[in-house]
Amino acid sequence: MSAFPNAETRSLRADLHELERFCIEALSAAGADAGSASSAARAMVHGARLGIDSHGVRLLPHYVRAIEGGRVKGKPVLRFLWETPAIAVLDAGNSHGARAAYMAMDKAMAMAQVTGIGAVSIRNTSHFGAAGAYALAAAEQGYVGFAFCNSDSFVRLHGGAERFHGTNPIAMAAPVAGSDPWLLDMATSAIPYNRVLLYRSLGVPLPDGVASDGDGLDTHEAGAVEMLAPLGGLFGHKGAGLAGMVEILSAVLSGMRLSQDIAPMGGPDFATPREMGAFVMALRPSAFVTEAEFAAAMVRYLDGLRSSRTVQGGSVLAPGDREWREAGLRARLGAPIDPETWTAFGELAARLGVRGLSTRPPAEAAE
Amino acid sequence: MSAFPNAETRSLRADLHELERFCIEALSAAGADAGSASSAARAMVHGARLGIDSHGVRLLPHYVRAIEGGRVKGKPVLRFLWETPAIAVLDAGNSHGARAAYMAMDKAMAMAQVTGIGAVSIRNTSHFGAAGAYALAAAEQGYVGFAFCNSDSFVRLHGGAERFHGTNPIAMAAPVAGSDPWLLDMATSAIPYNRVLLYRSLGVPLPDGVASDGDGLDTHEAGAVEMLAPLGGLFGHKGAGLAGMVEILSAVLSGMRLSQDIAPMGGPDFATPREMGAFVMALRPSAFVTEAEFAAAMVRYLDGLRSSRTVQGGSVLAPGDREWREAGLRARLGAPIDPETWTAFGELAARLGVRGLSTRPPAEAAE
Repeated sequence: MSAFPNAETRSLRADLHELERFCIEALSAAGADAGSASSAARAMVHGARLGIDSHGVRLLPHYVRAIEGGRVKGKPVLRFLWETPAIAVLDAGNSHGARAAYMAMDKAMAMAQVTGIGAVSIRNTSHFGAAGAYALAAAEQGYVGFAFCNSDSFVRLHGGAERFHGTNPIAMAAPVAGSDPWLLDMATSAIPYNRVLLYRSLGVPLPDGVASDGDGLDTHEAGAVEMLAPLGGLFGHKGAGLAGMVEILSAVLSGMRLSQDIAPMGGPDFATPREMGAFVMALRPSAFVTEAEFAAAMVRYLDGLRSSRTVQGGSVLAPGDREWREAGLRARLGAPIDPETWTAFGELAARLGVRGLSTRPPAEAAE
Repeated sequence: MSAFPNAETRSLRADLHELERFCIEALSAAGADAGSASSAARAMVHGARLGIDSHGVRLLPHYVRAIEGGRVKGKPVLRFLWETPAIAVLDAGNSHGARAAYMAMDKAMAMAQVTGIGAVSIRNTSHFGAAGAYALAAAEQGYVGFAFCNSDSFVRLHGGAERFHGTNPIAMAAPVAGSDPWLLDMATSAIPYNRVLLYRSLGVPLPDGVASDGDGLDTHEAGAVEMLAPLGGLFGHKGAGLAGMVEILSAVLSGMRLSQDIAPMGGPDFATPREMGAFVMALRPSAFVTEAEFAAAMVRYLDGLRSSRTVQGGSVLAPGDREWREAGLRARLGAPIDPETWTAFGELAARLGVRGLSTRPPAEAAE
């Protein structure tokens, strides 16, 4: 099941390279410099490739609007305010979130190459996109990567009846020799809001303990959802605690806005920078063990995991397994484009004067 | 409700200093050197002080047995194998887990003092005790502390029917100006096994989705529990993913045993070292923002959290709030000693020739 409700229900698909081309050209036409356009496109195509369509190319119209409005600077000045051999503070100059995050992770890796670890606190950034994109960027270079970002309030506390934390993701990726990386990218809410939208569109009741009405009470009715529940159900203090971990790393350590103080992603104000913080970190495995030891232990861990006994008729997956399988499919078939995004892309192409997105004919049966 | 079922149901209590004295003398008599005895006692008294009785002084007889058996070296040789300005690798020489973890966190803080961050991978350690003890040690010195350790398999995967991960805790602590630290210390299972024991002793059914029978199926019967469920219920892939984060940091990065390969804590072999790994990290807030900015943001965050609207009749707590309240109570009343532990302490005192634990008379009504 895709995270984004529309994605798998339509047959319109586009090649990933063509999607990247379209995103870059649209962002450039809207005023983004080359670094911003390519970083934002890379992060969106990460989502489109791995089936995380909530953070895929459907974000493009939003990002164009944020750049045109001035909330996000198309030509930001990013600079490292200070650094040690293992930490740095990046003032992103209200850049696109992906521009800042990839730059910060590059720095973290460069420090980890020398020192074994690198951590970068990011100031004055904006919507993060898929946190896993930046953790993965580290794993692709042989590092263990971490990425954290808070976001505008949408998740109640355990026992709470008010939006407090953002969905505050935790992402971690680790390289696996000869295979795709281990990749964890999770909101600290029980489910993402897009899952609520899926239940709404399907007209089926929500599971217990995932979302609440305006009084903080569990609701099974997707249309009544006013806030999300923290991960953990009866033990939601753990999900809320993890959201707090993300809040402290992202906002408190950067001096940027707490979730409760971040202007809503959806506007109406698209002119004022959102003053968000984020935190990324890279570890170099060979600073701790030999490359061969690390590789062998990851393989042993994953072999053990994938062969662990399952409930009857069930299956077990490592973080990322589902996504890499989807990526394999999408490399062949292209990524699905939901109708709303397809319409918005047509309007963007016309208005910005860029070549429209080429799509494939409806795909043959995808397994 | 205390994490340990017996703790609050009996009135026998002991002063925290007296508990520490007894632990140190018993461990010393069993063959522990001064550093090992004081570290192990400190970690147990952390549990006894904060109401985490599952990781409190009830562990003393186990630790004495591990030292006497040779699994844990009473007089270990600990040495840093190598280091950079921000990471170090500690070979703990099969020391007590607390001896290694406090020493590693001291090193992490010393590196963070200079470089802003310090991370230490620990090799050849043993039972970790309460992970929060080491994170707290950092917060007490003004650092943001993290501690991770895997443990012998007891938690199934999401969709799994076999013990795979340990309860693999995540601990983080952050200093709060003029107040007790923010303190998260959570197993990545839905509940700790001691909670299962509590339900068993109370004879009440378990909640949904917290523990499973031998086929990996949800059970409400505490007596039928063969494994714990990962945090998250229907979204247990998140809890299992977090357990994997701990596994990679603790075991893979240290070259030590995966949870599936760790000899059971309970023996019967108490002679062979368990070859466990762990990972601790410290961040210095003033490397990222000014001390005043960090302090103000933590206070604003916690004020917002504690005043967040609650469900009718409910309450919201920051991580650690419950524990600090309990610590206040126990500073006055002493920590409760469950009958089994009391009996074991008497036997230890007689056998090891140390002065028995002084207890207080049954406490007056503790609210």
